[in-house]
Amino acid sequence: MKKVVIESVAMNGGAGDYSYAKNSSLQRSDGFEAVKSLIHEAIMEKLDIKHLCNGNSIRITDLGCSAGPNTFIAVESIVEAIEQKHHSEGLKLPLPEFHVYFNDTVSNDFNTLFNSLPLERRYFAAGVPGSFHTRLFPEKSIDLVCSLSALQWLSKVPEDIANIGRIHYSNAPSEVMEAYKGQFSKDMERFLDARAKEVVHGGLMVFSFPCIRDGQPYSRFLVGVFFSLLGSALMDMVKMGKVDQTKVDSFNMPFYAASPKEVQALVERNGHFTIERMETQDSPILQGKGAIQVYSKHSRAASEGLIRQHFGHDDEIIDELFDLFSNKLSESFSILEESSMNFMFVLLKRKQD
Amino acid sequence: MKKVVIESVAMNGGAGDYSYAKNSSLQRSDGFEAVKSLIHEAIMEKLDIKHLCNGNSIRITDLGCSAGPNTFIAVESIVEAIEQKHHSEGLKLPLPEFHVYFNDTVSNDFNTLFNSLPLERRYFAAGVPGSFHTRLFPEKSIDLVCSLSALQWLSKVPEDIANIGRIHYSNAPSEVMEAYKGQFSKDMERFLDARAKEVVHGGLMVFSFPCIRDGQPYSRFLVGVFFSLLGSALMDMVKMGKVDQTKVDSFNMPFYAASPKEVQALVERNGHFTIERMETQDSPILQGKGAIQVYSKHSRAASEGLIRQHFGHDDEIIDELFDLFSNKLSESFSILEESSMNFMFVLLKRKQD
Repeated sequence: MKKVVIESVAMNGGAGDYSYAKNSSLQRSDGFEAVKSLIHEAIMEKLDIKHLCNGNSIRITDLGCSAGPNTFIAVESIVEAIEQKHHSEGLKLPLPEFHVYFNDTVSNDFNTLFNSLPLERRYFAAGVPGSFHTRLFPEKSIDLVCSLSALQWLSKVPEDIANIGRIHYSNAPSEVMEAYKGQFSKDMERFLDARAKEVVHGGLMVFSFPCIRDGQPYSRFLVGVFFSLLGSALMDMVKMGKVDQTKVDSFNMPFYAASPKEVQALVERNGHFTIERMETQDSPILQGKGAIQVYSKHSRAASEGLIRQHFGHDDEIIDELFDLFSNKLSESFSILEESSMNFMFVLLKRKQD
Repeated sequence: MKKVVIESVAMNGGAGDYSYAKNSSLQRSDGFEAVKSLIHEAIMEKLDIKHLCNGNSIRITDLGCSAGPNTFIAVESIVEAIEQKHHSEGLKLPLPEFHVYFNDTVSNDFNTLFNSLPLERRYFAAGVPGSFHTRLFPEKSIDLVCSLSALQWLSKVPEDIANIGRIHYSNAPSEVMEAYKGQFSKDMERFLDARAKEVVHGGLMVFSFPCIRDGQPYSRFLVGVFFSLLGSALMDMVKMGKVDQTKVDSFNMPFYAASPKEVQALVERNGHFTIERMETQDSPILQGKGAIQVYSKHSRAASEGLIRQHFGHDDEIIDELFDLFSNKLSESFSILEESSMNFMFVLLKRKQD
């Protein structure tokens, strides 16, 4: 059975029961296998390996890499595929050494990331702190970019939205939805502008992130359902006098699931990349009652950081909130089973200027 | 009055009373100013700026950068000097962007380093975890290397030395001294071999680290005196039954102060670099009774990490040890005042192969 992939910008650190490190096993499931095979195909079909072999090194970056057990999977798939392509083409030029840049925001736990770097790696590793919505590297210094389950995270919550009693645009008025859409557009523009400067001509970028299909309603989008239930749990806490209503009204999850059409339009407007491949994949939903516990733990690992930042670090409140959320997941099980979770795979190539 | 510069491989983390971050103000003193002006001269006189301007970026690494308030000083001096040289030569080619790699061992607190990166910096920053006695970067990928107060730290304590009741080669039998010397040679060989691969032809390396003058006795070398007194404090703890004698016998500080002649011979044996400049500087010793407190706090910040690794994390024991050490510093004040602290400044240039 296929499983759903959930990831987040603000992973729980450390190695506790609710840490991201202990609750990201889903990402090593078939969802990741599918992305790995898409990355492999992309490199086999689209990478100019002869050109790469003329340089002193092959420079790869993983944008929004986090610090869990899956941090190294994408990069290792890329290195493996390039080695295989080099071997299969029987080139006389030796393959240059790999330089890999692991990027995430400055709040990412880079100490954990560095301590978990594979000892037997075939690349030189560096960590790059900063938002991928800004410049991170010098001009023309990157050959390959990958970013898995990261581009759905907005650089910030859209400003000036009145989203009373909710924490996301799911089931919200259309103005809220439009504000999120606008923020995603701005973020992607900045992202593509920065990468257009940094990536060498002919360089590749591979992305995978949660999306909706063109025309699909948000009310049955799995992550949207999670956020609706978490918002509803917060409102229950308000009714119990444990959380302030204004706190809920001013909190929104900076998560946006774009459609392929939106992404295509943004790439075309930027103008520096050709779309070599763009497809959506269905990740069938977990079935059976065991799914609730998995969803509950994963949602907590992915959202607790942002919740604490806004609502404070009272462990009792946080535990109660996620208990309520788990109950709501159980009550809404039939809705979850009918929901869907899609991922968009995008392969872009940097044009000649 | 000039002040002495003390630094270490195993800085205390965090921001507590004994943290390296709070006890490294000495390093921003005249010692650092002298190194800054040497770096400035080195770049003005020896850097081929036209060649650098043909590349896409200028790649600088600080090896053994630590994570204190001084981490950024060397790199900023280099960037400033290069900008000034570019300006003064009136070159038509624009200056490429700077890519700076901050390196230290994997146990360094990179989270603190990344959080303290200057917001207004004129370079792209990356962190590189790993020992500088190994390869850290792809071939021919670095234009400038700097390393301040780091090369005195050995990759490990020399093996199979019997150094009963002492923690360093100061005042030790000559076999112990020779074993340290041998380890420093091996480490420098590995260091120079790695850098010879990584640094581009014509690239520069600037180092500053504690040294002894050719022929100077170790018994009056300030850091050696510190280690003798710390060893003596540990032996007092043994007599009080609070520390195990075998623990002291098996502990040695991995610190070596080389002489200019030794370093010259090692660079020549490596063969890939020319020595463009090599000089020693005296750092006059702090005078007056206030010096004891400064020495005491700085020595603790620099050595506590290694002490805890070996002797355990019992705060009471550690506090008592450093109290004893402070008393010994006071008792030996006249020896300290007659001791000396020298630094070696070395400028190397990568030869054409």
